[in-house]
Amino acid sequence: MDPFILYIGNKNYSSWSFRPWIALTACGIPFEEQLIPFDFDAGNPKFLEISPTGRVPVLHHGNLRVWESLAIIEYAAELYPDAGLWPSDRGDRAMARSISMEMLSGFRALRGACPMNIRREIRAIDLPQGVVGDVAHIEMIWRDMRQRSGGPFLFGEFSAADAMYAPVVNRFKVYDLVKAADTRDYMQAMESHTAWIAWRDAALAETWVVPEDEA
Amino acid sequence: MDPFILYIGNKNYSSWSFRPWIALTACGIPFEEQLIPFDFDAGNPKFLEISPTGRVPVLHHGNLRVWESLAIIEYAAELYPDAGLWPSDRGDRAMARSISMEMLSGFRALRGACPMNIRREIRAIDLPQGVVGDVAHIEMIWRDMRQRSGGPFLFGEFSAADAMYAPVVNRFKVYDLVKAADTRDYMQAMESHTAWIAWRDAALAETWVVPEDEA
Repeated sequence: MDPFILYIGNKNYSSWSFRPWIALTACGIPFEEQLIPFDFDAGNPKFLEISPTGRVPVLHHGNLRVWESLAIIEYAAELYPDAGLWPSDRGDRAMARSISMEMLSGFRALRGACPMNIRREIRAIDLPQGVVGDVAHIEMIWRDMRQRSGGPFLFGEFSAADAMYAPVVNRFKVYDLVKAADTRDYMQAMESHTAWIAWRDAALAETWVVPEDEA
Repeated sequence: MDPFILYIGNKNYSSWSFRPWIALTACGIPFEEQLIPFDFDAGNPKFLEISPTGRVPVLHHGNLRVWESLAIIEYAAELYPDAGLWPSDRGDRAMARSISMEMLSGFRALRGACPMNIRREIRAIDLPQGVVGDVAHIEMIWRDMRQRSGGPFLFGEFSAADAMYAPVVNRFKVYDLVKAADTRDYMQAMESHTAWIAWRDAALAETWVVPEDEA
């Protein structure tokens, strides 16, 4: 089989890249990684050959191009059905997809005000309208899912749903957004995962600075 | 098997309801429909029993609740693998998911400025920044996919990808947003589908008016 080649942005800031990267890594799915520095020219024809949308992440598999973080995960789950990207129980899988798609389509106040920033020191900021509601709704989702499954992850073992919320774990931490013990427990479980540590260490070694993501 | 019960909003305006409804209907998947009028109280505990997010669409299947339009479609595709919700070719399926998730996460300028409105008479409006770019990108997607497949739909036969773009077909028409012949051909194919006609006729029979969706 052709190798998976996953094109990603820089690891300190690129939240959408983090999602498929940690999903595939945590589930043991082999792929080659190609990092596109943040200052690439998205209109460059050479880059449009890499990504039809001019954005990362994009997965190359032979001649196929798969874009959007969750579409990459679904494609990998089809080719590696035993890797555990999705929960094995059908009902759990449906809920995992429901909350993953909520992440994909929503929580825009939080995403806009609090960019993922792995190396950022913990410091609260003034929060625009909507952020507190987003945080509360995400905490409720995490609580409900972990109470159902028994944790430590949303559906027991690490799954694609955790991957979709991984950048939120960083945001909650570095912008000091949450206090609840069960929320903190989940964040601790995520930050202790070997795949998280591998991404974090690579992000800390980067030297690029994107001013508009330094909130 | 327990019946599928799909809770939807009113048909004239509820674009997110339209997507799973037309997907399941076009692919012959049986379900019962429960329409929640637009003026429901989302904070009403009785409604939260129906939908954990306080929003529609939501699918009930026995005790299971599945929310988010595309998660509903994925769940139906698992239970009805031969219904053709997704293209049968794996590469086509990956691209169908990529463009479906682009719809789920993006095109916010278009979605914000031009609400779906089935009964609206055709009339152009002043377009805020970003709408023209969204329209051009969607036209490119439709063109690329139909050239690959030969049409009439994005992947030949009607699929979930067409369902995800169905409300856009209405927007392009009633706000007079497009001129290109191939775009118009696709819209014609969509508007001629029996599932489209069934939704449209039900929408036209509704009498609710939502002032903020009358752009």
